[in-house]
Amino acid sequence: MAEQRHFRSIAEVGQDAVRRLLTLTDHMAEVSRRPNPRVPALRGRTVCNLFFEDSTRTRMSFDTAAKRLSADTMTLAVGSSSVNKGESLRDTVETLSAMGVDAFVIRHRTSGVPWQISSWTDAAIINAGDGWHAHPTQALLDAYTISTRVSGVAGLSGLRVAIVGDIRHSRVARSVTEILTMLGASVIHVAPRTLLPPVSSTDSTHDLDEVIGAVDVLYLLRMQNERMGAALLPGGSEYSDRFSLTRDRANRLRPDALVMHPGPMNRGVEIRVDPSDLRQSVITEQVTNGIAARMAVLFDLLGSPASMEEGS
Amino acid sequence: MAEQRHFRSIAEVGQDAVRRLLTLTDHMAEVSRRPNPRVPALRGRTVCNLFFEDSTRTRMSFDTAAKRLSADTMTLAVGSSSVNKGESLRDTVETLSAMGVDAFVIRHRTSGVPWQISSWTDAAIINAGDGWHAHPTQALLDAYTISTRVSGVAGLSGLRVAIVGDIRHSRVARSVTEILTMLGASVIHVAPRTLLPPVSSTDSTHDLDEVIGAVDVLYLLRMQNERMGAALLPGGSEYSDRFSLTRDRANRLRPDALVMHPGPMNRGVEIRVDPSDLRQSVITEQVTNGIAARMAVLFDLLGSPASMEEGS
Amino acid sequence: MAEQRHFRSIAEVGQDAVRRLLTLTDHMAEVSRRPNPRVPALRGRTVCNLFFEDSTRTRMSFDTAAKRLSADTMTLAVGSSSVNKGESLRDTVETLSAMGVDAFVIRHRTSGVPWQISSWTDAAIINAGDGWHAHPTQALLDAYTISTRVSGVAGLSGLRVAIVGDIRHSRVARSVTEILTMLGASVIHVAPRTLLPPVSSTDSTHDLDEVIGAVDVLYLLRMQNERMGAALLPGGSEYSDRFSLTRDRANRLRPDALVMHPGPMNRGVEIRVDPSDLRQSVITEQVTNGIAARMAVLFDLLGSPASMEEGS
Repeated sequence: MAEQRHFRSIAEVGQDAVRRLLTLTDHMAEVSRRPNPRVPALRGRTVCNLFFEDSTRTRMSFDTAAKRLSADTMTLAVGSSSVNKGESLRDTVETLSAMGVDAFVIRHRTSGVPWQISSWTDAAIINAGDGWHAHPTQALLDAYTISTRVSGVAGLSGLRVAIVGDIRHSRVARSVTEILTMLGASVIHVAPRTLLPPVSSTDSTHDLDEVIGAVDVLYLLRMQNERMGAALLPGGSEYSDRFSLTRDRANRLRPDALVMHPGPMNRGVEIRVDPSDLRQSVITEQVTNGIAARMAVLFDLLGSPASMEEGS
Repeated sequence: MAEQRHFRSIAEVGQDAVRRLLTLTDHMAEVSRRPNPRVPALRGRTVCNLFFEDSTRTRMSFDTAAKRLSADTMTLAVGSSSVNKGESLRDTVETLSAMGVDAFVIRHRTSGVPWQISSWTDAAIINAGDGWHAHPTQALLDAYTISTRVSGVAGLSGLRVAIVGDIRHSRVARSVTEILTMLGASVIHVAPRTLLPPVSSTDSTHDLDEVIGAVDVLYLLRMQNERMGAALLPGGSEYSDRFSLTRDRANRLRPDALVMHPGPMNRGVEIRVDPSDLRQSVITEQVTNGIAARMAVLFDLLGSPASMEEGS
Repeated sequence: MAEQRHFRSIAEVGQDAVRRLLTLTDHMAEVSRRPNPRVPALRGRTVCNLFFEDSTRTRMSFDTAAKRLSADTMTLAVGSSSVNKGESLRDTVETLSAMGVDAFVIRHRTSGVPWQISSWTDAAIINAGDGWHAHPTQALLDAYTISTRVSGVAGLSGLRVAIVGDIRHSRVARSVTEILTMLGASVIHVAPRTLLPPVSSTDSTHDLDEVIGAVDVLYLLRMQNERMGAALLPGGSEYSDRFSLTRDRANRLRPDALVMHPGPMNRGVEIRVDPSDLRQSVITEQVTNGIAARMAVLFDLLGSPASMEEGS
């Protein structure tokens, strides 16, 4: 058997796989627009969502993606599980593998857990967010979303992208920076000094107003409530004053710029305008494309050249 | 695109739709009696159960109904969801819509929420109970259940129906009164004065014994535990003495009367006989018909003239 | 209608049914190894998992089994259910029956509940563990797992099996002892005196070291954390010293012996070696076979001589 492939970080899978997955995402987006968006591609395969951190939207996105490919799904969210009762993570993974799981979708608050789990099972591992480390399916759907607005993946080359917020603790920022840089975009991190990584090869600034009129993409991060008011951060309202997308700042955006957010939004914190009033917002498209991107990853790892015809 | 239709209250959908849905419920009841009760009518459609108030039986009834029509289902019960973490209801609805939800089934403790949600999404909205306001699928299944015992919907005309219990705070009482009055039945509310609505066009009495021997339908409401012993209500045991269906009162029911309850029952409170010993009880049939009624509503809102043949 | 059959205990179903189910399990194990392990055998049938005690792995095993047979499933885990709000167990069962449930899979902390429930519904009842009493699907999967290693069911005759741990409070021990004795194996219980049943016809010893070199099967029970340190039991570490499978004891096992555990394991308590380093371990196979055994039970109770062909 060939070595099992995984989707654990953008850096790990590399540029060729990323480009292949973007093409596949485009195909899955077409499937998703059909009146019956279900294809039999993964019939008989089992995908297990193993979520050690609550995330309804990511879990539902993966679950919907797996079902559109006709895979069976099972979900284990800790709290509802014996995992709490002293069973080791390893035993849980080995037990689920023995029940026939073909792919694990893993969300965990500790960086690196998806790699650790890979050593315990022959199943494919998809990282759905590990600690501060990586969230590669988010990055894939974001790159795809941008590509649909700039004449394809080639259009990402040279694009100026500002990522705003708690860069330091954000797996989204890390993975999005990786994929966009890989595809030729020019990324700048916008954050107070305490929320920038101590070491980084990415440009950064503390002044959102300096860049807002020039960027092609403004990517707002979710501000974790638990950090608001903590020592790392200027007081909540000062943060908002300096880093929030206000109406005034929105007016200075280029007309063809894109505003993005991985959700869920903290209205009044990182965003103070209603995105549905903002023609530059592609936040809803990110959600829709998230399903297509996750279908692409699941099919890439588990699919055979099986039929992708309509109807199941 | 034609304006999206919804099923949010009996008054809103009106008499023509109610009659069409009762006919459709009868067809769905026939489907449900087949050895394989699954039809492909809603294949490729996604129904999202959005429950902000716990109700296992209503949720399971809708879920089963959607699955019998081959729809995909997703369930979001608050508590297991990021909704608690500061995401607004609107963002939740917009996110789920962007994932491809075709209909939301909504249970919420606040009256009017299903209307509010309709303004945020193009999906169809089904009200599964909002505050003290409405519970229209319960009303539909109840009208259908009565119709099967009185030679069809026409048989409801002139029927005498007593609804007993906390009328004032009951969305079930409100919706059942609406549908039965619409179909020509004569409804009387039976309750202590404090549990009657301050303003109502429906007849009422405080004396169950006055009416029990004459009614065609005795509809018992669930007494909310949290109201027992509260100021609104005579002490628990006095309430039960005056408004409970006791063995003695059951003996005074007409032999062809129907006893109904929306469930779950508080045995020893509103009902002191075992309904399985009561030949007039159609409580179990209400549960069975609930699935058919919800299939009818889902098909009416989401179905095309697609095939309803057996097997899927 | 013929009287409904159930699967509530090994003793109740008897030897003929056990042998038939072992043959059927072998067929289901073959189905489970197919690229697409789904058959249409129970299409249109509804299986309800009714779990009043948390058990993720047993619930997932039954759920997967039902889905491989194309049954619809619903799960009611108490805590998420109105059952807590004063609805009686009987009303819950009657309601679910009225929704069309064909089989209930029941886990409950009180012995006998599956029998009680049988009197309230026409559905088939499968005992997924009741109190200290019985866990017959665990016994079936264990007997099957052994049979695959000893040239079939006939090979169980004369086999020496030691069950180690809290025999007294273990439904697993009770059911496994019943099935293996029924099939001709010779079972010995290994436990401190306080954890042996007060009355038993099964041989017993307090000395694991006395038997470990001679047995064909070493069956380790899970030590309930809540009993460790309680009066019934020598102090945790003394228990482990005397009854745990240590590396030293593992070295004294026969090379062709089997080591079994129903899961989840308490590493460091009943087992101090890593089972993946123990060639005698069939613990992973038990999990895999659990799905096949549960498919066999579900098909035996609900199936018609319907098609078992591949693909659905």
